[in-house]
Amino acid sequence: MDGKKMIITIGREFGSGGHEIGEKVARLLNIRFYDKNLIELAADRSGLDAESVAPSDERAPGLFASGYAPTLSDQLFYAQSDLIRSLAETESFVIVGRCANSVLYGVADTLNVFIYAPLHDRIERVMNRYLIENEERARKEISRVDKIRRNYYQYYTEYRWGSQNGHDILINSSMLGIDETAQLIAMLAKKKLGG
Amino acid sequence: MDGKKMIITIGREFGSGGHEIGEKVARLLNIRFYDKNLIELAADRSGLDAESVAPSDERAPGLFASGYAPTLSDQLFYAQSDLIRSLAETESFVIVGRCANSVLYGVADTLNVFIYAPLHDRIERVMNRYLIENEERARKEISRVDKIRRNYYQYYTEYRWGSQNGHDILINSSMLGIDETAQLIAMLAKKKLGG
Repeated sequence: MDGKKMIITIGREFGSGGHEIGEKVARLLNIRFYDKNLIELAADRSGLDAESVAPSDERAPGLFASGYAPTLSDQLFYAQSDLIRSLAETESFVIVGRCANSVLYGVADTLNVFIYAPLHDRIERVMNRYLIENEERARKEISRVDKIRRNYYQYYTEYRWGSQNGHDILINSSMLGIDETAQLIAMLAKKKLGG
Repeated sequence: MDGKKMIITIGREFGSGGHEIGEKVARLLNIRFYDKNLIELAADRSGLDAESVAPSDERAPGLFASGYAPTLSDQLFYAQSDLIRSLAETESFVIVGRCANSVLYGVADTLNVFIYAPLHDRIERVMNRYLIENEERARKEISRVDKIRRNYYQYYTEYRWGSQNGHDILINSSMLGIDETAQLIAMLAKKKLGG
């Protein structure tokens, strides 16, 4: 890096390859990569027990959450958000999920990306990655995880999940494939953020 | 062009600069550019009167259209669609609007792009371009034209307007500005379509 900070937030559909793309972007730009590894950092910093809050990662509070006390989801979300904003003051990084585009609203040095892909490609990727042999099970898993992510995102942000709002660009990872999509994002980060 | 065909379809929010970007992409790739100039070509080919159908361009049929006879909107849409598919068999081009991503569904050599932008940037562009001095009037004009485009698109395609479905990429034109967005799309067309 030559002085300028680069922060790339990546939202993603389940099975779109968004996580893998994020890792590759971080490697290409030689900057840090955050995903669920933020849980422990955030827990440490805020005195939460990482093991207890981990199941609440990227989840909206349950239906039966009290209206008053902050749920585990809330506690983890706010601890992660504080941490993300504080990291953004000093370093460059790629972050996957965690509503980071919304958490960093107003921070100048960000590129906000969303990765999606056609369902048939996502089914194939999920079957390969999680060794699921039944296509119908993969399809259900995609639908289940996307629903959790959508609920989480729409609970903690003002945006509709996967919409134009809050994103600089939305990319179908099947257009160029994983590697070239990562290269594209790294190039865009340099162009927009001038790193 | 070295043999391979390149067809780039561009959907766009009103005031996002999508039309201008499309023209620049066509110039960068040295291929044809189609927008409302298709009306006359399509009318000629299909025996419609260009002047009569022009007001129905990119519009869904009105509410009081008969359920049986094809409306002027229908006639123009089908004439344009036939023409677009026939052009796609022989030449490379950029086309703005006309549900071209859906009309060309299944055609291999296409890159389907949607251009959007934050409302405040669109207001500024519309005020400059159409010499509107009142911000509120520009905002209303944006809302009016987007509504017409959305209705048209959702009437003649299976997709939601401006959504991931049917698009390889959705780009906020304020990320890089008009010129660099055009360069980006030209580069993607070469990468994906190998022109």
